[in-house]
Amino acid sequence: MYFLTYSYNNKEYIGVLNRDKTAVIPAEMIFEKLKQTAPSDMINFIELSEDLDTVMFSEIINSSNNETISLNDVKILAPIPYPKRNVICLGKNYAEHAKEIKAIKNINSDIPDKPIYFSKIAYPAIGQGEYINSHKEIVKELDYEAELAIIISKNCKAVNKEDAENYIFGYTIANDISARDIQSEHIQWHKGKSLDTFCSLGPYIVHKSGIAFPPQLEIKCYVNDELRQDGNTNQLIFDIPTIISDLSKGITLFAGDIILTGTPAGVGAGFVPPKYLKSGDIVSCYIESIGELTNVIK
Amino acid sequence: MYFLTYSYNNKEYIGVLNRDKTAVIPAEMIFEKLKQTAPSDMINFIELSEDLDTVMFSEIINSSNNETISLNDVKILAPIPYPKRNVICLGKNYAEHAKEIKAIKNINSDIPDKPIYFSKIAYPAIGQGEYINSHKEIVKELDYEAELAIIISKNCKAVNKEDAENYIFGYTIANDISARDIQSEHIQWHKGKSLDTFCSLGPYIVHKSGIAFPPQLEIKCYVNDELRQDGNTNQLIFDIPTIISDLSKGITLFAGDIILTGTPAGVGAGFVPPKYLKSGDIVSCYIESIGELTNVIK
Repeated sequence: MYFLTYSYNNKEYIGVLNRDKTAVIPAEMIFEKLKQTAPSDMINFIELSEDLDTVMFSEIINSSNNETISLNDVKILAPIPYPKRNVICLGKNYAEHAKEIKAIKNINSDIPDKPIYFSKIAYPAIGQGEYINSHKEIVKELDYEAELAIIISKNCKAVNKEDAENYIFGYTIANDISARDIQSEHIQWHKGKSLDTFCSLGPYIVHKSGIAFPPQLEIKCYVNDELRQDGNTNQLIFDIPTIISDLSKGITLFAGDIILTGTPAGVGAGFVPPKYLKSGDIVSCYIESIGELTNVIK
Repeated sequence: MYFLTYSYNNKEYIGVLNRDKTAVIPAEMIFEKLKQTAPSDMINFIELSEDLDTVMFSEIINSSNNETISLNDVKILAPIPYPKRNVICLGKNYAEHAKEIKAIKNINSDIPDKPIYFSKIAYPAIGQGEYINSHKEIVKELDYEAELAIIISKNCKAVNKEDAENYIFGYTIANDISARDIQSEHIQWHKGKSLDTFCSLGPYIVHKSGIAFPPQLEIKCYVNDELRQDGNTNQLIFDIPTIISDLSKGITLFAGDIILTGTPAGVGAGFVPPKYLKSGDIVSCYIESIGELTNVIK
């Protein structure tokens, strides 16, 4: 199942894609048939989903041919446009990427022995087709990072690795846009990762039931149709059970929390000379079984 | 004016202290007299406050002797218990503190030439009198950091230094609790600063009209009545106009955003041997003209 947040007649809704992914079934309609109050937004839907009658939910989706809206008639938004807190990100979580970034000032290329966590403002997160602001006046080294994003399903703390999958709602694609110059100048990476429009998410959240665990998915990034990143999510240094288990030691995770699992080799900063983004560039992040997330640099 | 969020009969409210700071005037009552819809929480109050009739607001506060609740009858909460996004913090923003932390692994003691920003999860932030969890099972080096917190008054971007004060709603006290071992092991500071209960705020937000700009306020931290930190907010390396101006280059700040301006010398990690916190310790952060924020280590 593919869940999305979309705008239709200038109002924001959540919905589910139909089987051939050409149309949206509004969540309101599904919940009406379930005789339940419709969720107010995607985070609320995730919270409610733990108690859903999934068999009936699937039946409604499969039988709702006449109550759908063509995908062409809606504007897809980030699946969670306003995360409750910042997005949590992992740095240097693919070995080849850890090596390539020695070019960035103040960042070493050691393979980390513990996960590196930082956070990224996504308020709002941008979605499919939206512009990424190049912030030309302050940014000289604009870069892309295709990443697999985990969406947490329910509140949890001190999760065992073996139980980690139980706390995942699904997956989406993220482009962790980064200003390399700001990231390194300020020592801590927070600001260089958090400029307005620097977090692109979507286009859909794929429910975890649609992806074998742990995810072994091709992950790629294209800039103007040139393949730049080409990896597989089975190359994570710290895998998903380790991330959820380690992060939730001491920090309560909440339904709807978003964790970006790191990016494979091939970022702009890794090329000699570097291949940074510029106005007009089209950046597409692709993950097998999820889809493609495309944005244009403004 | 001193604004607070409090619990009364197990419901959460916002209010203003009366003149002798012994009682709370509920915001609901004030807005009823103003014939306006009462704000739903502190962030909403801050948003509305830009259009408030402040003269009438003050008159109501000064004439409301019979409509107050004794401070003894309420539980003071963090003034903003659930910030919309993480709290933004500055690292190494007092010179003597930058020097003392050379004892922490992976952190150098250079005076920074640009502000160091990181973010801290405060979901929820804890308030006056609440326990700080020592996270004994994973933390060996628990530390305190008394800080002046700025509360942003309205959405803004690319603010000039000269205009910075216009975008401040007020100030409060923060204790930026830190697990030094986790902070340094994970390279980026985010996790070591973000464990549950690690952000204490309050007890009140003092409106900016009550503090001359820029704030030149004594700031102290006591552990079990032993004076550990003793500085003045006029010692900031990057002052408040610089912080608001620099941070808002590229990042939109929102009404209710919280910025922690850094901590003076005297943290536990700076002593030889270090003086880390342990269960039962009472930590009090004091800032002149704002008050005292006290928490106990569990």
